[in-house]
Amino acid sequence: MVVKVYGPSYASPKRVLVCLVEKEIEFETIPIDLFKQEHKDPEFLKLQPFGSVPVIQDGDYTLYESRAIMRYYAEKYKSQGTDLLGKTIEERGLVEQWLEVEAQNYHPSIVNLVVHILFAPVQGLPSDPKIIQESEEKLGKVLDVYEERLSKSKYLAGDFFSLADLSHLPFTQLLVGAIGKDYMIKSRKHVSAWWDDISNRPSWKKVLEFGTPF
Amino acid sequence: MVVKVYGPSYASPKRVLVCLVEKEIEFETIPIDLFKQEHKDPEFLKLQPFGSVPVIQDGDYTLYESRAIMRYYAEKYKSQGTDLLGKTIEERGLVEQWLEVEAQNYHPSIVNLVVHILFAPVQGLPSDPKIIQESEEKLGKVLDVYEERLSKSKYLAGDFFSLADLSHLPFTQLLVGAIGKDYMIKSRKHVSAWWDDISNRPSWKKVLEFGTPF
Repeated sequence: MVVKVYGPSYASPKRVLVCLVEKEIEFETIPIDLFKQEHKDPEFLKLQPFGSVPVIQDGDYTLYESRAIMRYYAEKYKSQGTDLLGKTIEERGLVEQWLEVEAQNYHPSIVNLVVHILFAPVQGLPSDPKIIQESEEKLGKVLDVYEERLSKSKYLAGDFFSLADLSHLPFTQLLVGAIGKDYMIKSRKHVSAWWDDISNRPSWKKVLEFGTPF
Repeated sequence: MVVKVYGPSYASPKRVLVCLVEKEIEFETIPIDLFKQEHKDPEFLKLQPFGSVPVIQDGDYTLYESRAIMRYYAEKYKSQGTDLLGKTIEERGLVEQWLEVEAQNYHPSIVNLVVHILFAPVQGLPSDPKIIQESEEKLGKVLDVYEERLSKSKYLAGDFFSLADLSHLPFTQLLVGAIGKDYMIKSRKHVSAWWDDISNRPSWKKVLEFGTPF
């Protein structure tokens, strides 16, 4: 059964795509145009009642929320492709910890930058310089903790690549690319080496081919 | 080995406590006073570099982020106490989906209400009526999706109690209690029945004995 992934050009769905590539799972993509409000279409809302991407369909099974979908496939195909959950329950605990750090501490600041630097001009909405400045400061403090952590282990959860690292790929790509704040990564030695490592994985290069709305 | 849990009077650590009670795992609690900035103490930052609660120590193993800690213990003691992850990988996928919905859609609005209704007066900070109103509206829309979902299954991930339900307990308790917006739950028939069910579990009543800073 080929997995259907909705919204491949956006950042959150790219978490799912890179996970599927790492796990060697076949998939097809279904475009969704957020600027045309296709995520608020009644048919789409039947799949994802909150009206956001990604959603996957795998036969009769429908699942949404990118980090939940990644966990599902990483567990279902544990021994196929790259192992993304660690070898022990304790390693998985640390993978979960850093996945939550990404979701709770790292992600919200970058989302503010995406909204106020990338989305606002496209949608003709006002961009708030105060929110941009505060988000950048907040993100800088989070990256300082990452720098310390990555001076002690090669990847976030330990010396093994995992979902925790993978989950950072799409929005960090926007940060160093379209948002234009690559200095935040480059100015931190260990964060920079980590980013070079994970963003050069063949899986990520393949996913970049799905393009971006910006 | 008795698990040490830091910060038992606050809401996020209560996710961990109620999980440990459900899993019949012995623990002790270590108070942390956020109003005295004890979470920014250098010794505490060695355990949790972002300076937030909860953190657990279990022998040599340290873990933070409440939802990561819950997943760790639910998996480690899968067959002890209440099973909180579902029976199949597909059920666990839905548990993960609704855990993410709680973290990404439900939690942020209630946090805004906590900050602007509960924390602001205690800390002598300004409370923003616009943020309160917008957060309440946003939360209402999320609860409308919950109402639809809970009209079809007894719990969020299906007809079984799981981490996804449990994760809602501490902040919903603040919503119906100190925040004073219990109408948001009571006015929705299926959400209200679900809340009555999960908040009357003996595990949650036991955790409430650890008190609250408000």
